Amino acid sequence: MERSSSTAAETENDLNNENMESIEKIFESKKVPPWQKQLTFRAFVVSFILGILFTFIVMKLNLTTGIIPSLNVSAGLLGFFFVKMWTKFLDKSGLLKQPFTRQENTVIQTCVVATSGIAFSGGFGSYLFGMSEVIAKQSNETNFAQNMKNPSLGWMIGFLFVVSFLGLFSVVPLRKIMIIDFKLIYPSGTATAHLINSFHTPQGAKLARKQVRTLGKFFSMSFLWGFFQWFFTGGDNCGFASFPTLGLKAYENKFFFDFSATYVGVGMICPYLINVSLLVGAILSWGIMWPLINEKKGDWYSADLRSSSLHGLQGYRVFIGIAMILGDGLYNFVKVLGFTLHGLYHQFNENKTKGDPLTGNSSADLPSLSYDDQKRTRLFLKDQIPTWIAIVGYLTIAVVSVITLPHIFHQLKWYYIAAIYVFAPVLAFCNAYGCGLTDWSLASTYGKLAIFVIGAWAGGSNGGVLAGLAACGVMMNIVSTASDLTQDFKTGYMTLASPRSMFVSQVIGTAMGCVISPCVFWLFYNAFDNFGVPGSQYPAPYALIYRNMAILGVEGFSTLPDKCLMLCYIFFAFAIVLNGIRELVGANWARFIPIPMAMAIPFYIGGYFAIDMCVGSLILFIWSKVNKAKAAAFGPAVASGLICGDGIWTLPSSILALAGVNPPICMKFLSRSTNIKVDAFLGA
Amino acid sequence: MERSSSTAAETENDLNNENMESIEKIFESKKVPPWQKQLTFRAFVVSFILGILFTFIVMKLNLTTGIIPSLNVSAGLLGFFFVKMWTKFLDKSGLLKQPFTRQENTVIQTCVVATSGIAFSGGFGSYLFGMSEVIAKQSNETNFAQNMKNPSLGWMIGFLFVVSFLGLFSVVPLRKIMIIDFKLIYPSGTATAHLINSFHTPQGAKLARKQVRTLGKFFSMSFLWGFFQWFFTGGDNCGFASFPTLGLKAYENKFFFDFSATYVGVGMICPYLINVSLLVGAILSWGIMWPLINEKKGDWYSADLRSSSLHGLQGYRVFIGIAMILGDGLYNFVKVLGFTLHGLYHQFNENKTKGDPLTGNSSADLPSLSYDDQKRTRLFLKDQIPTWIAIVGYLTIAVVSVITLPHIFHQLKWYYIAAIYVFAPVLAFCNAYGCGLTDWSLASTYGKLAIFVIGAWAGGSNGGVLAGLAACGVMMNIVSTASDLTQDFKTGYMTLASPRSMFVSQVIGTAMGCVISPCVFWLFYNAFDNFGVPGSQYPAPYALIYRNMAILGVEGFSTLPDKCLMLCYIFFAFAIVLNGIRELVGANWARFIPIPMAMAIPFYIGGYFAIDMCVGSLILFIWSKVNKAKAAAFGPAVASGLICGDGIWTLPSSILALAGVNPPICMKFLSRSTNIKVDAFLGA
Repeated sequence: MERSSSTAAETENDLNNENMESIEKIFESKKVPPWQKQLTFRAFVVSFILGILFTFIVMKLNLTTGIIPSLNVSAGLLGFFFVKMWTKFLDKSGLLKQPFTRQENTVIQTCVVATSGIAFSGGFGSYLFGMSEVIAKQSNETNFAQNMKNPSLGWMIGFLFVVSFLGLFSVVPLRKIMIIDFKLIYPSGTATAHLINSFHTPQGAKLARKQVRTLGKFFSMSFLWGFFQWFFTGGDNCGFASFPTLGLKAYENKFFFDFSATYVGVGMICPYLINVSLLVGAILSWGIMWPLINEKKGDWYSADLRSSSLHGLQGYRVFIGIAMILGDGLYNFVKVLGFTLHGLYHQFNENKTKGDPLTGNSSADLPSLSYDDQKRTRLFLKDQIPTWIAIVGYLTIAVVSVITLPHIFHQLKWYYIAAIYVFAPVLAFCNAYGCGLTDWSLASTYGKLAIFVIGAWAGGSNGGVLAGLAACGVMMNIVSTASDLTQDFKTGYMTLASPRSMFVSQVIGTAMGCVISPCVFWLFYNAFDNFGVPGSQYPAPYALIYRNMAILGVEGFSTLPDKCLMLCYIFFAFAIVLNGIRELVGANWARFIPIPMAMAIPFYIGGYFAIDMCVGSLILFIWSKVNKAKAAAFGPAVASGLICGDGIWTLPSSILALAGVNPPICMKFLSRSTNIKVDAFLGA
Repeated sequence: MERSSSTAAETENDLNNENMESIEKIFESKKVPPWQKQLTFRAFVVSFILGILFTFIVMKLNLTTGIIPSLNVSAGLLGFFFVKMWTKFLDKSGLLKQPFTRQENTVIQTCVVATSGIAFSGGFGSYLFGMSEVIAKQSNETNFAQNMKNPSLGWMIGFLFVVSFLGLFSVVPLRKIMIIDFKLIYPSGTATAHLINSFHTPQGAKLARKQVRTLGKFFSMSFLWGFFQWFFTGGDNCGFASFPTLGLKAYENKFFFDFSATYVGVGMICPYLINVSLLVGAILSWGIMWPLINEKKGDWYSADLRSSSLHGLQGYRVFIGIAMILGDGLYNFVKVLGFTLHGLYHQFNENKTKGDPLTGNSSADLPSLSYDDQKRTRLFLKDQIPTWIAIVGYLTIAVVSVITLPHIFHQLKWYYIAAIYVFAPVLAFCNAYGCGLTDWSLASTYGKLAIFVIGAWAGGSNGGVLAGLAACGVMMNIVSTASDLTQDFKTGYMTLASPRSMFVSQVIGTAMGCVISPCVFWLFYNAFDNFGVPGSQYPAPYALIYRNMAILGVEGFSTLPDKCLMLCYIFFAFAIVLNGIRELVGANWARFIPIPMAMAIPFYIGGYFAIDMCVGSLILFIWSKVNKAKAAAFGPAVASGLICGDGIWTLPSSILALAGVNPPICMKFLSRSTNIKVDAFLGA
């Protein structure tokens, strides 16, 4: 349980500081509108606009490093800003019928998160794009035509519609257990709820205005910075993103600060421990291991290979990273499962006295429920969603997709899908539970599980690679939407939004996402040259990783280079042991021990974004030292501004690329000796 | 008189705001030490250290663009900081015998300004270096051996010692007229005095500590920024100094922001009008005229010339710039002379009633002398420097240098020098007067006068070029030190420092400067490749300009390219007319009309530093809008920090260069099409 505390406890402490008195007492005078009234037309218009914005941001993150921070806070803030503008305008013109409530704010936030969530779980940077020819050519293995499927707008939208709604239904019956009984934290959801609550108190509205102004300022700066950078990217490895800030040697090993406003912002949002873990992972891999393995060139692996070949150094990078991710995933899977079973065991032992929670130890807490919790619990339980709707919904969609999916992916037999749908609700529950503890959705881990299981089942010659990737998509969509929705239920619980309105909002948001995400991806895919190629602007690093996992699942370990398997075992074990140590030493010490999952991310991509994120951490750290209150109040606004501005710049930048407008200048970095050669060449 | 007001009035207004009550009443309890006690050993140790620091800064400015802001304020601030540290340390150890007074502070400031002043008037970026072979090769005219003299430590120190002390003696007898009678403003001197006064009041000391901290912060940032930039300058046109911030086309026409902390700082110190004038000049020349003239290639001038040939476009740049500088110089010379004669005329007419000032109109002001002015005048007149000392000193040094100088420069006959020394005191007076009005020392204009007169007198075949340049040096040193010393007398007047201690401090400072400056120049000269070559790190642009003026003086206008002479006449007249307009419209409108002298500076060098300086202006402008008081209090500290940090970085950077340590990386900017070629070349 320590692992959860280390990240979540920090958040919780911060939140408690601003939450000393009862929030619901402040709101006592304000009536909570019925759930139908919480779903307004304006809310969905705003959600649609923000959904597009956040889809761009998430898509960009997907395609650059694959690290996506929780955007709930930004969504809440911007949602407030837009609707407030809207209502202010209507108020002035005398047309305002319904005031802006925090419940409506929550609905918007939920809808936006659902929309942009599809951009992640749709796998545009991972499994879905891993099916394409571009990625297949990089891995150079089992490239039969039946193991490839190039992206196309039609089947992507269809696929998403068929698989994205299952998660919603699977978690609906469990929401009471998660929120009321387990009292899970859901750090992002809680933070968002605090934000929304604070906005709707009078002094909160003033602070919110200030925050919005800060966000706007950094949004513009970040956008203009993206625009400025663009001019200098006229070629491969040009521009600030290739700046050898720490020297050329460090740059070759992917250690540099790449001036990305996005990742500095992400670093400001992520806990210190995650950023430091990333950096430790980068130093361990690119600083120590890869250079050492590189010296074994010609010994451990052939020296004639292309640098991108998976039989060479690249193979070590990819597979050791995968091993560590799987090790961490397994550990947490077992842990969460253990807790769940332990909780269930206690529940049955105690014979459900007082209708009390699943976790045995929290029964003593019930009488001490605060005024806030009592009121929230009452409202949360008022608007029920009947369990039969969840079951019927789940079964209907399952049947539809079992029939439809084999038409999209011929390699994915109907019984694979049926098998997934049997296990999916359990995994969805596990993920929602884990996310509640740690804020860390393990959706991709469950997806990887599906890759291996279904891939091995299908076999390479029967299109097992593609079947594995498609199965990953099915699985990921279920477990990811499940955790997102539960997160939102927590926000709704704390803002007195009805579970019904949350559910409807999530359904609408998911539907929007199923259309918006493929379209945005399609824009990126067509706009940028060398899309998906390593070293380019949008390398989509995870697409190759996912494809290689699928190949590994299909072909077994035989294709790995020498000693690679051994190293994989070592790091698989290392991830588990490190997690175990984190558990054993307690929360106080665990915050100094890196998280294996975060460590593994730079193994393949390199450390540059870890440096960006640590810069973000550093800024926040210094800011907190100088002025803790201000840093706490405006840090998230600054970070959101940085992320959103840079993210939205990708819209005009991709339009420019589509229109064939190329940046005019290349900012190039050459060693002194190369520069002399180039000058001689240019002079001649 | 409007011209003076436009720049000085702003300063004066600012100063008056903080100077509402009597300053001397605050200081009434503090005894003014006798003049011998104002000259302490510690003061000269600190002066020596700061003298080296500022010599580096001035030398760097000399060798990059030739624009040198007034460093009096920084010198005062840092002097305070160092001696305060010193006295605090001694105070704690019980060894402090003499408290730190504002008079001592003034002595340090005076000494530092005198030391670093030599770095400017020594002509290391202009006439002195213009004699060298490197520059002679660029102008390609009259390059007989006798028109060249390469720098060498020995003769440079000797030359400076012989010529630098004359100015001091020439102005001593006139100080009363300037300070007490004319009540000239001397903006920099006044500002420095206010600063020093404020430091020595209790609340001032607190503010000073804050200012010093700000200065220290920006000093470190600027130093580290210089250090960081260094790594990326491994070749010609590499690094941030060649950043085509506004595009490649603009870069070719020298419009770019070159990330120079120095010039951003300089821009924060210089009045808005000067920065805008520079920018207007840059747009007029590099934005409009040079591109137009470039289209006449093959028509107005041969298309086969090297781009650096003075018979081509480069000629237009250099000579039109010179014409404008001379036009402005002539205008101001005549104007100042007119005022002086007018004042003298009035004095004789009014028969010196009441021992009143030279300027007729100020006689009415006398009774209204404030308490401050009364006290200051009394102390200023107490410690006299006998006029016979000044005259004997002047004559002695004049004789020594008439004998010595022809041994250093064979081309400079003794009667040229004698002729200069006859006129010099008048010109020194004019310059001190003009500087008092405008803060703008016209030393270089008087120097140019000497170039033309002596050059024409000697003739080209008799080494007239070198004679002209040497004469320029003699003249510049006299008039420049004269204005500096009067400036310091003003500071001394306002801080109750004795004129005697000021004079001694200035003599010691000048002597230090005569040794330090050549040594620092020698370090630069030996440390950097391509020293003095256009486009390199230290192009010393004015060296070529000065040499060309000398050639022009010797050879006449025959060597100029087609239509160049006509354009020179036009711009010569334009400078005079523009000055006239500035005079006529009054101070209120004059602040929107650019200053011709400032406009001419970018004609040859380009607009990049004007953009830096405008960025500095913009920062200060926005800061003033946000928080006027804070901007006024900390703006100079920030600017000084930026200038000093970047300036002192040149010390390690030149040591690195001497040690043969070259920067490892070249940050290069290529057009997209060139980049494709280079990538193909590097790939092959």
